[in-house]
Amino acid sequence: MIMAEMKVTVHHLGGQRYAGVNPSGDKLLIDGSEDFSLGMRPMEALLVSLGTCTAFDVVEILHKRRTPPESYRIELRGERAEEHPRRYTRITVRHLVRGEGITQKVLDRAVTLSHEKYCSVAATLDCEIESEAVLLE
Amino acid sequence: MIMAEMKVTVHHLGGQRYAGVNPSGDKLLIDGSEDFSLGMRPMEALLVSLGTCTAFDVVEILHKRRTPPESYRIELRGERAEEHPRRYTRITVRHLVRGEGITQKVLDRAVTLSHEKYCSVAATLDCEIESEAVLLE
Repeated sequence: MIMAEMKVTVHHLGGQRYAGVNPSGDKLLIDGSEDFSLGMRPMEALLVSLGTCTAFDVVEILHKRRTPPESYRIELRGERAEEHPRRYTRITVRHLVRGEGITQKVLDRAVTLSHEKYCSVAATLDCEIESEAVLLE
Repeated sequence: MIMAEMKVTVHHLGGQRYAGVNPSGDKLLIDGSEDFSLGMRPMEALLVSLGTCTAFDVVEILHKRRTPPESYRIELRGERAEEHPRRYTRITVRHLVRGEGITQKVLDRAVTLSHEKYCSVAATLDCEIESEAVLLE
């Protein structure tokens, strides 16, 4: 079930360290420390949020076609504006998939459906998002 | 140093489990499993990304005024559209801060500066963001 409202609490641990907690108790460490970092930067976590959200769709579509991925990784690059607030202006999302029975056409379709129709994170972002689907041998 | 380009790779671990990795090797687990979850959902991670990004600014501003926070948490709630792609339509960000020498006026100013001028994640989102600054006794 996808909820209509999502809630998290972020606790400041000191310095640039933070722990996010959701209602189930799942934790996420964010750290901006230069020297010894315990977690990602906020803008990196945003990319992971986008990459996993679109991957959920792609995997679901491939499963429904009875051609689940055997391996799947998503490479994300975000370009930021030079001036404050240094927002993302463009994000590229490369889906690299391997799996028996998966064709380039099917993969292209799954990735396009996610980016244009289903991905909640992509639809919440105000920046150019470019996707690429790479079928691995 | 804030980089002009950010990169992460997301690896599918199987099922609805994913690990995001940044160039420094920091990892972030995302999990959509219903039963035994190892991490947050993508849309929850997006809230944590926003909450920590704005917190970085607020803490920095309070530090510069020599009134660092003694305790600080951020409560985020995101409302989603009912129809696919179920994007966030509205996110509320409550900053709850305690610290010697911090006044409501200073806190309001720090939160407003972050949300309107500095927060890179907020500036990348295409949804209404409402912020509230609560000074704790």
